Amino acid sequence: MKEAIPSALIAEQNEKLARDLHKDYDALGEKLSRTGLDIEQLTARAQAFELAVPSWGAGTGGTRFARFPGVGEPRNIFEKVEDCAVIHQLSGCTPLISPHFPWDQVEDFSELKQYADSYGMGWGSVNSNTFQDQPGQTHSYKYGSLSHTAEAVREQAVAHNLACIEWGRQLDSKALTVWVGDGSNHPGQQHFQRAFERYLDSARTIYSALPDDWEMHIEHKMFEPAFYSTVIQDWGSNILAAMELGDKCKSLVDLGHHAPNVNIEMIVSRLIQFKKLGGFHFNDSKYGDDDLDSGSLHPYQQFLIFNELVDAEYRQQDGFGPDYMLDQSHNVTDPIESLINSAVEVQRSYIKALVVDREALNSYQENNDALMASNTLKAAFNIDVSPILAMARLRGKGAIDPIAVYRASGYRAETGKKRPASGGSSSGIV
Amino acid sequence: MKEAIPSALIAEQNEKLARDLHKDYDALGEKLSRTGLDIEQLTARAQAFELAVPSWGAGTGGTRFARFPGVGEPRNIFEKVEDCAVIHQLSGCTPLISPHFPWDQVEDFSELKQYADSYGMGWGSVNSNTFQDQPGQTHSYKYGSLSHTAEAVREQAVAHNLACIEWGRQLDSKALTVWVGDGSNHPGQQHFQRAFERYLDSARTIYSALPDDWEMHIEHKMFEPAFYSTVIQDWGSNILAAMELGDKCKSLVDLGHHAPNVNIEMIVSRLIQFKKLGGFHFNDSKYGDDDLDSGSLHPYQQFLIFNELVDAEYRQQDGFGPDYMLDQSHNVTDPIESLINSAVEVQRSYIKALVVDREALNSYQENNDALMASNTLKAAFNIDVSPILAMARLRGKGAIDPIAVYRASGYRAETGKKRPASGGSSSGIV
Amino acid sequence: MKEAIPSALIAEQNEKLARDLHKDYDALGEKLSRTGLDIEQLTARAQAFELAVPSWGAGTGGTRFARFPGVGEPRNIFEKVEDCAVIHQLSGCTPLISPHFPWDQVEDFSELKQYADSYGMGWGSVNSNTFQDQPGQTHSYKYGSLSHTAEAVREQAVAHNLACIEWGRQLDSKALTVWVGDGSNHPGQQHFQRAFERYLDSARTIYSALPDDWEMHIEHKMFEPAFYSTVIQDWGSNILAAMELGDKCKSLVDLGHHAPNVNIEMIVSRLIQFKKLGGFHFNDSKYGDDDLDSGSLHPYQQFLIFNELVDAEYRQQDGFGPDYMLDQSHNVTDPIESLINSAVEVQRSYIKALVVDREALNSYQENNDALMASNTLKAAFNIDVSPILAMARLRGKGAIDPIAVYRASGYRAETGKKRPASGGSSSGIV
Amino acid sequence: MKEAIPSALIAEQNEKLARDLHKDYDALGEKLSRTGLDIEQLTARAQAFELAVPSWGAGTGGTRFARFPGVGEPRNIFEKVEDCAVIHQLSGCTPLISPHFPWDQVEDFSELKQYADSYGMGWGSVNSNTFQDQPGQTHSYKYGSLSHTAEAVREQAVAHNLACIEWGRQLDSKALTVWVGDGSNHPGQQHFQRAFERYLDSARTIYSALPDDWEMHIEHKMFEPAFYSTVIQDWGSNILAAMELGDKCKSLVDLGHHAPNVNIEMIVSRLIQFKKLGGFHFNDSKYGDDDLDSGSLHPYQQFLIFNELVDAEYRQQDGFGPDYMLDQSHNVTDPIESLINSAVEVQRSYIKALVVDREALNSYQENNDALMASNTLKAAFNIDVSPILAMARLRGKGAIDPIAVYRASGYRAETGKKRPASGGSSSGIV
Repeated sequence: MKEAIPSALIAEQNEKLARDLHKDYDALGEKLSRTGLDIEQLTARAQAFELAVPSWGAGTGGTRFARFPGVGEPRNIFEKVEDCAVIHQLSGCTPLISPHFPWDQVEDFSELKQYADSYGMGWGSVNSNTFQDQPGQTHSYKYGSLSHTAEAVREQAVAHNLACIEWGRQLDSKALTVWVGDGSNHPGQQHFQRAFERYLDSARTIYSALPDDWEMHIEHKMFEPAFYSTVIQDWGSNILAAMELGDKCKSLVDLGHHAPNVNIEMIVSRLIQFKKLGGFHFNDSKYGDDDLDSGSLHPYQQFLIFNELVDAEYRQQDGFGPDYMLDQSHNVTDPIESLINSAVEVQRSYIKALVVDREALNSYQENNDALMASNTLKAAFNIDVSPILAMARLRGKGAIDPIAVYRASGYRAETGKKRPASGGSSSGIV
Repeated sequence: MKEAIPSALIAEQNEKLARDLHKDYDALGEKLSRTGLDIEQLTARAQAFELAVPSWGAGTGGTRFARFPGVGEPRNIFEKVEDCAVIHQLSGCTPLISPHFPWDQVEDFSELKQYADSYGMGWGSVNSNTFQDQPGQTHSYKYGSLSHTAEAVREQAVAHNLACIEWGRQLDSKALTVWVGDGSNHPGQQHFQRAFERYLDSARTIYSALPDDWEMHIEHKMFEPAFYSTVIQDWGSNILAAMELGDKCKSLVDLGHHAPNVNIEMIVSRLIQFKKLGGFHFNDSKYGDDDLDSGSLHPYQQFLIFNELVDAEYRQQDGFGPDYMLDQSHNVTDPIESLINSAVEVQRSYIKALVVDREALNSYQENNDALMASNTLKAAFNIDVSPILAMARLRGKGAIDPIAVYRASGYRAETGKKRPASGGSSSGIV
Repeated sequence: MKEAIPSALIAEQNEKLARDLHKDYDALGEKLSRTGLDIEQLTARAQAFELAVPSWGAGTGGTRFARFPGVGEPRNIFEKVEDCAVIHQLSGCTPLISPHFPWDQVEDFSELKQYADSYGMGWGSVNSNTFQDQPGQTHSYKYGSLSHTAEAVREQAVAHNLACIEWGRQLDSKALTVWVGDGSNHPGQQHFQRAFERYLDSARTIYSALPDDWEMHIEHKMFEPAFYSTVIQDWGSNILAAMELGDKCKSLVDLGHHAPNVNIEMIVSRLIQFKKLGGFHFNDSKYGDDDLDSGSLHPYQQFLIFNELVDAEYRQQDGFGPDYMLDQSHNVTDPIESLINSAVEVQRSYIKALVVDREALNSYQENNDALMASNTLKAAFNIDVSPILAMARLRGKGAIDPIAVYRASGYRAETGKKRPASGGSSSGIV
Repeated sequence: MKEAIPSALIAEQNEKLARDLHKDYDALGEKLSRTGLDIEQLTARAQAFELAVPSWGAGTGGTRFARFPGVGEPRNIFEKVEDCAVIHQLSGCTPLISPHFPWDQVEDFSELKQYADSYGMGWGSVNSNTFQDQPGQTHSYKYGSLSHTAEAVREQAVAHNLACIEWGRQLDSKALTVWVGDGSNHPGQQHFQRAFERYLDSARTIYSALPDDWEMHIEHKMFEPAFYSTVIQDWGSNILAAMELGDKCKSLVDLGHHAPNVNIEMIVSRLIQFKKLGGFHFNDSKYGDDDLDSGSLHPYQQFLIFNELVDAEYRQQDGFGPDYMLDQSHNVTDPIESLINSAVEVQRSYIKALVVDREALNSYQENNDALMASNTLKAAFNIDVSPILAMARLRGKGAIDPIAVYRASGYRAETGKKRPASGGSSSGIV
């Protein structure tokens, strides 16, 4: 296996922190044991936790106003694989890369697969792109893709999705994620019903081309790039589309794609209940689809979402098994650092949700003891599970302090030399 | 037929305004004829337009902070019928009263029906109330009703709904509207999925008791009275529940029950498409479920909603035929004045939507001419259809200027004498 | 000193938990010492932390839809004092009661003061009420109070505030908090500028009556009870009013009174910078002014606010010294439990903010190291400071587990016997 | 004077519509005269109305996801002048161009001024740009400009603003508009107070360089490009900054830069009251800073804003005289069409606000007749003033139907030939 970061460096850095870690781990283990929790089991769960990283996340993002490029940004999918390998090696929980086409298209996918294999990286859900025009493209998506009024445009968009499935098959991916920017900027511009019917028609063709062991995930988004209406605007339209298409079609939840104040954990529960939760795009946001680092603003909300997910596991809810992925825009940080950090934050929410005393919670719920139900969740959230996360990394040959090791490695400076700036302060895609 | 307001007074007041009205009506008719529109047909449509008025709307509303009672508020359903008759007589478009139980419960429903008949008033959808405790009630709804964890509470709530159906049957109503305040104020207080399952169980029992020619309408609300989660929180949960229950169950849209920024006209389209639009509660709002006067803040949004409704009529969409109703809280105005005014504003949106050139709009949509599509809607909205509305009232023996006639009638002062203040500045229910 | 809860019971309950607490405290102390933090100093700060409890918070709150009364609600200010004494005795950090007039008006304020003294309770900021009509009141506040168009109404509202100052003086309070519901429900109803000018005129008269050592705190609120416009709608209007009035007038921040998505910690910083932060009303909310339990939904936001407060202390910012108070509506919990719990949550945020490494943070900020700056805050937030809070309570003769002790005490059942239900499911005031 | 569109074509097209226009104009004039309004005076006011067009608005805008270029986009400020001349010639109300530097920088500003003069176009407020990095720029604005932690960056940003003033002086502009993207994406990234202090320091240097007859306008924006905090985030920070800087510094309101639900017309009133309203950026939005066409979604809100503006004129409010400008992003329409259309929509709101019966409104306000106050505004809004707007255009040698004339002119096709596509689907700046 190739090493993105020298394992000797990691070991050396871990060495400095291991003593304190063991002390904290033992203290926490003792404390958890008082309520019947086995820290070793929790650590094993942390080690088993898997999150996909989006290939495009390795580049610096931007806004419509500007993009401020970083040093050593990856120029192709091979370099993105390298960066993703760094993230996984240090965090220990991101073994999958989610590719985006046509950005990550290559001549020879078996070469790409081998390259990823050499780093121990696999492939998550495949993402199609019909929200941008590519050089040389026959028809423009300015007025939509899968829901466009013109059949030729819809066919072009469908064909691209079929190609994505094929490319994904070669990478041994098992899911296609479909997000379209289709919508309108003016009242009247689009006939809502006809647009949705056209979308469903196109989606049916894509769905029918899915390999048997694949799923299709539909992603909704309230707005942007369309600012008056969006064809799959919310979970309601999303689940209706997924129900129309069939069992292998499910809904994907991106945390930033909702109206203000909406209770997202409740939406998650609804999708679980109706066997339609396909996966997640984790990120955080304050104002819109800000695509900030996961958990950087609303760690308790992220915990409440994992509370639903862990509860579904606990109840062995039929049809449950979503894919987890980060989807963030790193405008002011080193993308590798943000992705490492965010992976750990998502993992943190997962472990905290495992700590919840579900029997007690259930009993408080049945008896409408609102305060103690709330406190039961809070008790789990308040526990600092950092030692479990660090121990999971240590045991998985990752870094106790991944950011520190990354900085010590000089990886970024090196890529800065190897990958000359692409120039262009034009806005990035996220 | 009894007269709530002396028809002679109306005639006398109309006399003063009739000349100018005819002048404006003719000028508008000429203008509309240039684009092939027949003003007489529009006036006929205005006359045929029907809106229900909520019985509870006749009283002054309030907030959790206070209620500032008005003069001569109705003390029972008979007095509410009188007030609703005033509204209908002057506006000409509100022939239906929507009762609310147990507030409007009486010993003898045939007496009540006769009383309403004597004013030419009929009955709209029946509303159940399981969001408040009534004196002497066995079980409290503090922790829910149809979704309560305790079977006995759910049974009590179901029984109340069954009684509502029976009472409504005696009034010749044809629909039951179910809105519950069930939800939670704390994360963890309620298990989302189990609460929704209990809700569906209870609702199934109610649904199975519906007379053949009835519909059941489910109303969603994002929040309030529950402030962390609500069992039927949005149109997604609403339509899923309606689909689970059966064809006679549909979704009701209250304009104030959505997250900020949400595109409500698009939700209306989705419900139409899936044959699940049961009806409307019209009102307006700026911050939350403000229950302000319909169209007083967002007249263009109201027009865009009617654009969807009229479009569905135009396309003869299968399964389309929603009930229209006002649902407002009148905290600082005379409720009768607000309801008259709001009825006219809703009717105004309907007529403007009829003026839209649908063939042109369709063509612009097909060709992605966003600007002209938008302008086609705006052209209809910009037309001042007031003369059509006034002429419809004049022809229907209503008032050209209903507020002026109402004020001239001295009706409010008279009720002030006949109906002594109930006292109590406690908050009203809306 | 009278004991609201028998100290023997507290001691007995603490006994059971003390061993584990000491173990956790020691482990945490060791861990904190690695970064140079002295747990003893933090515990001392926790013990010195003071929060006021609103007298009205001791009753069950409600919404405009309903109020579901609890058992043994206090019927007058003396009973509220008893409940507040319970809260302080168990939590150890709420030694002040904030009274609300005319609700808490008594004949003999020296008797009331002595009664509170006997429990070791003092008095926080005095709250006036001109958003409700009281029985027998000459002029109604239906259309405003301090900003009413009629001089007589304004004078009545001013006089009430002057009376509040006098009553507060007798209780040895040092601040008057002014919140008015003045605003409008319809565009055009109120002339914005004239209404604000009238408000300022009235407020000047009140301000000029302040004792020398008092402050006047203005509270803004985006909406409710007024639903189109509010006279002091946001911090902008608030600080402008405070600047117009003078140095002793400052702005009070209630966490629930802002537009969606607004960055409240930034507003706190602005008010600190301009020497106008008078105090806080702590609570939590998801949709509007939900008045949920502090920190129950957004604990990280509460921490970020305390980060600003502790930073101002750290920088010895001129003019800094806000009053802290809870202001919540307890609709589904025992108010005493919620207030205890919330006091601890606010204290938790304070202690976590003290743990922040401010030198490191400052350095990251200067170097635009966004990720490490963010992680520096998160590192402090992630630490479970529960042992410090519990130890502070233990040392202050409070309860290690205050909710458990409260429940064990049977206090609520006893008040249920002593205080018969007031009846009335009308909505409470919060 | 050069003609952007042949006046003969305009005359020919007007000829076809003139008869109907005169008919509608006369009918409206008669109707208005009944309430004492002189249509000729209103038409004169419409003709005198002036709006600036942003130079950058002539290009197709985009989002961070993509930009879909249009045909014949202007490649430099001279071509933008041509496009703006088309807009003004047809709409008759946009005689000013607002330039943006460094985008519109030229070697010889007198040549540019002469070129604009030749089309009868003048220059509005000058806009600086420190939210993007320009090729060859010494310091990056990735972490801020006027508020950057490094003095050298701040100095560079200040120097650019000083240059903008000098360039604007040569164009005979009279105002500098300063909008910065400074802010943060992570809690802790930026010290709120120190950043604001640095901003004020930089702004003071710029302010002190203003020519005597200039104003400086500060523009606030809630978020984007910064997604956690923004240095001038709202009108509160804006007016405080303007007060710190001096009398010639005022606040600029962009309709899209506010939190959801905020009452913008009230903010306008506050700025007027404190003599700090500098100007407007008109546009419309549903979700965030969508930059949609003015009035395309919320025409009544735009009217309510003009109601405040016209009221300030009516009251001869001291210090009142804001600059009006469009600021939109045209992603799916021909920018020239959108700007023409939007100019007319803004003008429409202005004329409707002039129609308001201010004496009646005032009387209703004084008497708290909320319904009639609201109806007084609505009565003005409901009037279709299109004939006044069209007549004003006709008399000013503009087009009765500007979009139709523009399309008939073939201007766009011609620019398509003369201005080869710049290529690049990278996102535009708006």
